[in-house]
Amino acid sequence: MSKIPDITAVGSMALDTVTTHYGTHENCLGGSAVYFSMSASFQAKVGLIGVVGDDFPKAHVELLKNHGIDLDGLEVVKGAKTFRWSGSYLNDVNAADTHCTMLNVFATFEPKIPENYKKAKTLFLANILPSLQMKVIEEMGPDCYKVCDTMNFYINSARPELERVFENVNVIVMNDGEIKMFTDQANLIRAGRLVMEKFYPEYLIVKKGEHGSLVFGRGGFMKAIPAFPTEKVVDPTGAGDSFAGGVLGFIARNGRLNNENVAEAVRYGTAMGSFLVTGFSIDGFMDLTLAKIEERVEALRNLSK
Amino acid sequence: MSKIPDITAVGSMALDTVTTHYGTHENCLGGSAVYFSMSASFQAKVGLIGVVGDDFPKAHVELLKNHGIDLDGLEVVKGAKTFRWSGSYLNDVNAADTHCTMLNVFATFEPKIPENYKKAKTLFLANILPSLQMKVIEEMGPDCYKVCDTMNFYINSARPELERVFENVNVIVMNDGEIKMFTDQANLIRAGRLVMEKFYPEYLIVKKGEHGSLVFGRGGFMKAIPAFPTEKVVDPTGAGDSFAGGVLGFIARNGRLNNENVAEAVRYGTAMGSFLVTGFSIDGFMDLTLAKIEERVEALRNLSK
Repeated sequence: MSKIPDITAVGSMALDTVTTHYGTHENCLGGSAVYFSMSASFQAKVGLIGVVGDDFPKAHVELLKNHGIDLDGLEVVKGAKTFRWSGSYLNDVNAADTHCTMLNVFATFEPKIPENYKKAKTLFLANILPSLQMKVIEEMGPDCYKVCDTMNFYINSARPELERVFENVNVIVMNDGEIKMFTDQANLIRAGRLVMEKFYPEYLIVKKGEHGSLVFGRGGFMKAIPAFPTEKVVDPTGAGDSFAGGVLGFIARNGRLNNENVAEAVRYGTAMGSFLVTGFSIDGFMDLTLAKIEERVEALRNLSK
Repeated sequence: MSKIPDITAVGSMALDTVTTHYGTHENCLGGSAVYFSMSASFQAKVGLIGVVGDDFPKAHVELLKNHGIDLDGLEVVKGAKTFRWSGSYLNDVNAADTHCTMLNVFATFEPKIPENYKKAKTLFLANILPSLQMKVIEEMGPDCYKVCDTMNFYINSARPELERVFENVNVIVMNDGEIKMFTDQANLIRAGRLVMEKFYPEYLIVKKGEHGSLVFGRGGFMKAIPAFPTEKVVDPTGAGDSFAGGVLGFIARNGRLNNENVAEAVRYGTAMGSFLVTGFSIDGFMDLTLAKIEERVEALRNLSK
């Protein structure tokens, strides 16, 4: 009998080709489910749901396993290719220019949830089609604590389905560009209020990259958590999913978010994002330990004291 | 014999015509010296140095006096006109589109410092020509604690003089756009380090508007202080000078900045900026009390706890 993971996570698995001012890395391990799971693995047992083709390197599978990530939910499609994305951050370190997206096996992805995953206390929905996020929500059952992320693409192309997801999760995570687009508001405080009023999640976390994060609760705007100061941003791909991994890892260890612990949870997310961006792909997580993460959380606590 | 002010301040005095999404206000009281002095007046006695024409309304002079601002250093040029600026924030609440600048008396302004002002413990140099800032620095003497602000215009047009000012002050205040332009660096942490290394002030405070402030000390990057969440930004004109007024007012009450108090000083600056932007001109300061300011500082302290 398989062990129940702390967190069930669903998202993309990719081979990315990324160009930044620090160079180009080709066909490196990427995808929202990968960044999230690797990040959360320092604090929790993750059960990953995703799909790859048989071109997906064995070494990547081994790396994920070595981080204790449960891959029972990883589907490998024979004779098919893994999702590939290429992009660059030469103009703006905060926004990728996409060169090419080849969905491949991801185009027809249908998340299949292993039975033991369904018993996980916490669910993370990374950026997959909102209709698929909704399907996973329904299969996980009502007692599961659900956190979702999204991406700009779905705000335009699948808004009604995305709104249904927002109505059915405990915590919504978005970045500043996404929430401005979603609400058609330039003022983030107003944008946050509108999302809270419409969907009434327990918390809404707005990620602002180098400017840190804003937290909205049911009483309105609550917290502003600064970013960790980083001079060298080698590759920002996956920073948002790594942030979520830090937050959900914290939840796995400390319980659901509440007004007392939400700032600390966001600091774990902030710390994980700050490590991730120091290298291409998931290089920023190599040699990382929970002790180093906690040291950075402590530094973040002192930043605004 | 005149009383020695806590802070001597030099900067522009203006009649502004400002258009925002909340409307247009014509010929309203403005200028960096006005915003700064009004803001600082809640905590300190300010001696203002500036120039106006005889078109400058008596009511404005009375208003400044009623806030305890010493106007011995205010020069009124007969038969001449006050500096006028008009601009709008319709595209971007963080950056004004200037429609028209009429320097008038400000074009030939030569700051004349009353003798009692020269004995002030603290000097604030708002945005006037860096060569004039330098002249004031020299007249104030070496024991005075000096804080300067600047503006993008002088970064391009008077860089050598501006660098001399930076070498001769204790604290440099800049906004994010200015320091990026000045250092030609998009990364604010790196930009801050470069300014600290080159000019070695005691502190460098980088204002980021809605994203709060960064503080750099001689040991490197130190603090990130969040902004106060504000849904309704009626008019951001003068927010930076009001920020400085809060910081210098704090210094007047609590002594020079040090690693223990700098975050709190920045919170006073943040609070003053957040009140100011809720109205046109200095309307956001009407009915304000030190008790209300301290309440907001307390709220800011809790924002990132």
